[in-house]
Amino acid sequence: MTQNSPSRRELSLLRALLTRGGRKRSNCCRCEGVRAVEELLARRKDLVQFIVATRRGIDAMRCELPEVKILSEEEFSQYSDTLNSQGVIAVAEIPESPDTPVAGDFILALDQLNDPGNFGTISRTYRAIGGQELWYTKGSVDPWCDKAIRSGMGAQFSLNVRKFDDLRSLCDAAEKAGFQTIYIADPHKGESCFTAEKLFKKSVLVIGSEANGVSMFPENSRSVMIPMPGDYESLNAAQAATVLLLEYVRRNTQYI
Amino acid sequence: MTQNSPSRRELSLLRALLTRGGRKRSNCCRCEGVRAVEELLARRKDLVQFIVATRRGIDAMRCELPEVKILSEEEFSQYSDTLNSQGVIAVAEIPESPDTPVAGDFILALDQLNDPGNFGTISRTYRAIGGQELWYTKGSVDPWCDKAIRSGMGAQFSLNVRKFDDLRSLCDAAEKAGFQTIYIADPHKGESCFTAEKLFKKSVLVIGSEANGVSMFPENSRSVMIPMPGDYESLNAAQAATVLLLEYVRRNTQYI
Repeated sequence: MTQNSPSRRELSLLRALLTRGGRKRSNCCRCEGVRAVEELLARRKDLVQFIVATRRGIDAMRCELPEVKILSEEEFSQYSDTLNSQGVIAVAEIPESPDTPVAGDFILALDQLNDPGNFGTISRTYRAIGGQELWYTKGSVDPWCDKAIRSGMGAQFSLNVRKFDDLRSLCDAAEKAGFQTIYIADPHKGESCFTAEKLFKKSVLVIGSEANGVSMFPENSRSVMIPMPGDYESLNAAQAATVLLLEYVRRNTQYI
Repeated sequence: MTQNSPSRRELSLLRALLTRGGRKRSNCCRCEGVRAVEELLARRKDLVQFIVATRRGIDAMRCELPEVKILSEEEFSQYSDTLNSQGVIAVAEIPESPDTPVAGDFILALDQLNDPGNFGTISRTYRAIGGQELWYTKGSVDPWCDKAIRSGMGAQFSLNVRKFDDLRSLCDAAEKAGFQTIYIADPHKGESCFTAEKLFKKSVLVIGSEANGVSMFPENSRSVMIPMPGDYESLNAAQAATVLLLEYVRRNTQYI
């Protein structure tokens, strides 16, 4: 591991990447925190542009680090987006909409999901259950913003993240790739997620925005619900996603 | 609905209840927000001491209100614990450790769970799946603190909440009540939650602290895990609880 100081250009990029415009101009993002950087290095080392860290941040990392630019705690705090930083940020190229063919048993589609914490948590759970294709529509929070990457602990770097203009074009692309059944997660109606037969069989599972649900209902789409005994508030978006995604694990008995 | 101003004693109580000491002295708690107050009124109207609200808060309520003490928005903001208040707070007696017999198919036990948001979210999900007995150990966050009630949307008022000195005395009490099988949620080992046969058959399901897991392993307890395909970070405490609790719903086919 070689060490030196970050250049002025690098420091200015670090700050610019906190904005959507900054990320768009450079096609890079910030990946902050020990676990997120570990995930990035383990899975997509090729994307790393540079890493800045404090001595404390370097000590906390459990993996081999490439070149690191050192900052003092005080300097670092000016670039961190968290209250209690872990002392390490990587700048990485955004691997959005890769050229690779569509992989796996089903596509998880997030339609205008607004909250970066939810986007991150859902990405992380999807990665944890072995998901591969994370698709989303315009109007969602940026999956590559600081908070989404931190909440996801860098899971985004392990997924094929693809962006679409709207849910219709997303479903068209899925159909072309052989994923023909569209399931819309609904809080109140539809087939039970515990019995819906085609739920993970070359299908798309769509989760809509926290406040308004999905932006539209594609032709021939089906609704899938998590059955609940009472007439109570439904689960929030991240909880619902967790239950639906773990149902995939339950059905794949080799894991059980 | 009659309306007048809160007394000085009531306003001072409102503030005192933000502290654990204040709640202990008066055996009361604050229940803030439209949904939480609606839940309280629907389920345990008998506990309500008084309600303070702004005109806006009153308009937002979808149920019949008893007597309400009116505050201006400016006055209210001095007593609210949230940034964007909904303009209504009820003060209610704490219904802890009720005299009623232990009810239902299983007991959910939270052992030194620290985060009020997690405590609230788990309470809410447990209530939503028809759970009845929510037990917890000393060292947990106070279930009646402001944030736990807000996150729970008042679900605590619909549950039999009982406190124990430690996990051993909790398990002893459960055994006496006929709940003999103890399951400890474990991130890595144990029976699969999708197949563990006795999971909800007069059992106790224990969820430990976010950082350290359970405080001890009671004699003859079993571990139950959520199987995950990869070698990835486990789900957080609230996500794990959601999956385990929804497994109860899945097994009770009358709901599906």
